[in-house]
Amino acid sequence: MATIKVPEHVPSPAEDCEQLRKAFKGWGTNENLIISILAHRNAAQRSLIRKTYAEMHGEDLLKELDKELSSDFERIVLLWTLEPADRDAFMVNEATKRSTSNNLVIVEVACTRSPLELFKARQAYHARFKRSLEEDVAYHTSGDIRKLLVPLISSLRYEGDEVNKSIAKSEAKILHEKIANKEYNHDELIRILTTRSKAQLLTTFNHYNNEYGNAINKDLKVDPKDEYLKLLRTTIKSLIFPERHFSKILRLAINKLGTDEWALARVIATRAEIDMERIKEEYFRRNSIPLDRDIAKDTSGDYERMLLALIGHVDA
Amino acid sequence: MATIKVPEHVPSPAEDCEQLRKAFKGWGTNENLIISILAHRNAAQRSLIRKTYAEMHGEDLLKELDKELSSDFERIVLLWTLEPADRDAFMVNEATKRSTSNNLVIVEVACTRSPLELFKARQAYHARFKRSLEEDVAYHTSGDIRKLLVPLISSLRYEGDEVNKSIAKSEAKILHEKIANKEYNHDELIRILTTRSKAQLLTTFNHYNNEYGNAINKDLKVDPKDEYLKLLRTTIKSLIFPERHFSKILRLAINKLGTDEWALARVIATRAEIDMERIKEEYFRRNSIPLDRDIAKDTSGDYERMLLALIGHVDA
Repeated sequence: MATIKVPEHVPSPAEDCEQLRKAFKGWGTNENLIISILAHRNAAQRSLIRKTYAEMHGEDLLKELDKELSSDFERIVLLWTLEPADRDAFMVNEATKRSTSNNLVIVEVACTRSPLELFKARQAYHARFKRSLEEDVAYHTSGDIRKLLVPLISSLRYEGDEVNKSIAKSEAKILHEKIANKEYNHDELIRILTTRSKAQLLTTFNHYNNEYGNAINKDLKVDPKDEYLKLLRTTIKSLIFPERHFSKILRLAINKLGTDEWALARVIATRAEIDMERIKEEYFRRNSIPLDRDIAKDTSGDYERMLLALIGHVDA
Repeated sequence: MATIKVPEHVPSPAEDCEQLRKAFKGWGTNENLIISILAHRNAAQRSLIRKTYAEMHGEDLLKELDKELSSDFERIVLLWTLEPADRDAFMVNEATKRSTSNNLVIVEVACTRSPLELFKARQAYHARFKRSLEEDVAYHTSGDIRKLLVPLISSLRYEGDEVNKSIAKSEAKILHEKIANKEYNHDELIRILTTRSKAQLLTTFNHYNNEYGNAINKDLKVDPKDEYLKLLRTTIKSLIFPERHFSKILRLAINKLGTDEWALARVIATRAEIDMERIKEEYFRRNSIPLDRDIAKDTSGDYERMLLALIGHVDA
């Protein structure tokens, strides 16, 4: 469930554009006005605002925002305003670049979007970068990490809930054997994780747990510093329990000495319209403190107001 | 360019369905009537006929054809009548099964369809088989062949004609090194072939040819019996010169002792609406005999009439 609050009577895109134009003009920028509009419009509405803005003022709204805003506040507003598929393309591209490399973002996009959303992100990547998403991921990675990431990001998993129990059983056995032998990069292990449907994997992991006594991710927690193993665990968790994955990313981002603003903005911009309500529940369950209180403690100013508005904080 | 001949004034789908119904009724089936309708309708028209038939007669046209027809004639009519994406899904599924295993078909579908057509085939696979296409391909293959086929069939290559010449140069060098070292299954070689756009690959292969003196496929022709190498060569050829690939498949199918009817029907059913005119040209250039004469020599009856109609033979 989404956390953003869209007013009952939404102004027309033209009215929103007039207000935004006003917010950019005059002495300094009116950040509160920007938040009061953009944080309270859904993806379709924001897309229409952007289109209307270009028609009315001959400028790309994103470029205007880029000119007017700065630092963390700018980043969350820009990420939020992008169309979801284009945003995913943008973030994955950043994640493949040396200076902003982040394989976890690639796993996250590959495993927590629906098959069709992932496909749309791949199409948006073509339009924006004139290359394919998997092409850049493959080019910028190597070895085991490439072996895992390329099929993950190219997958079009079946979405139905039909499950083959005998395959689940035999594949739980394969997974257990490979993990017991420390063959974490085995072809079969990667095949199972990158091609099976979420419903099928859930059955497989449950069987693994029942038959072999440990959750699969516990058995994969052998070396906390090994990046490949960490990505494997992230794959599993974000496929079957995405709100727990996101809640943990938020906790790590906030608890860091110097908040990880990119992770915070990424999770909030990508989930506010999807499952942020459940992420907040999971966050509270795990940390006994509401997410909005933790965010308010670690951030400030317009940036704080924007984040809180997106996660549905009442005063924002 | 397509070879099928659609009449200037096409009867309504309801009229076509009435005629088809007539062809099924009475003493024996009227195969000529079936050919005269189905072989002369494009994909959109056939799809409408199938839909109308179900509405008018409460039966699936494909099931009726399956009941009325038999052997090679039945197969070409069924393949032809299927929607292209569904047909690809159907053929790839056959190709993953032990009794009808055919990795070349998987390469062909992966490399000669447009990125969007390949995506639609993957969607059709979900609908028809309740699993993903890459899931079945990965499950039924192993080793080097899996390593090549899974990324090929999951790709969404960039379609634009932008080319990066310095990458083409450096990747031609990588390809040449790996091939010279007989590392045909090297990660980098597979990465290049499975992720780069067709325009980029064309530039890379041309650079390879100019710089190292041989066409890349010539350098890969070291062991004619090695299936993996054969699939590599098919990948390259069907990406950059599909009509030559198809023309060769037709020649091999026809020249075989006992024509390979499946290959013949596959190429004709899948290309008659796409590039069969160019395939015929290529066939003639290579074999100095027109394709229709070769087909007429090797086939007979309704089957022959259907094939000839699809490749635009004047009398059919």
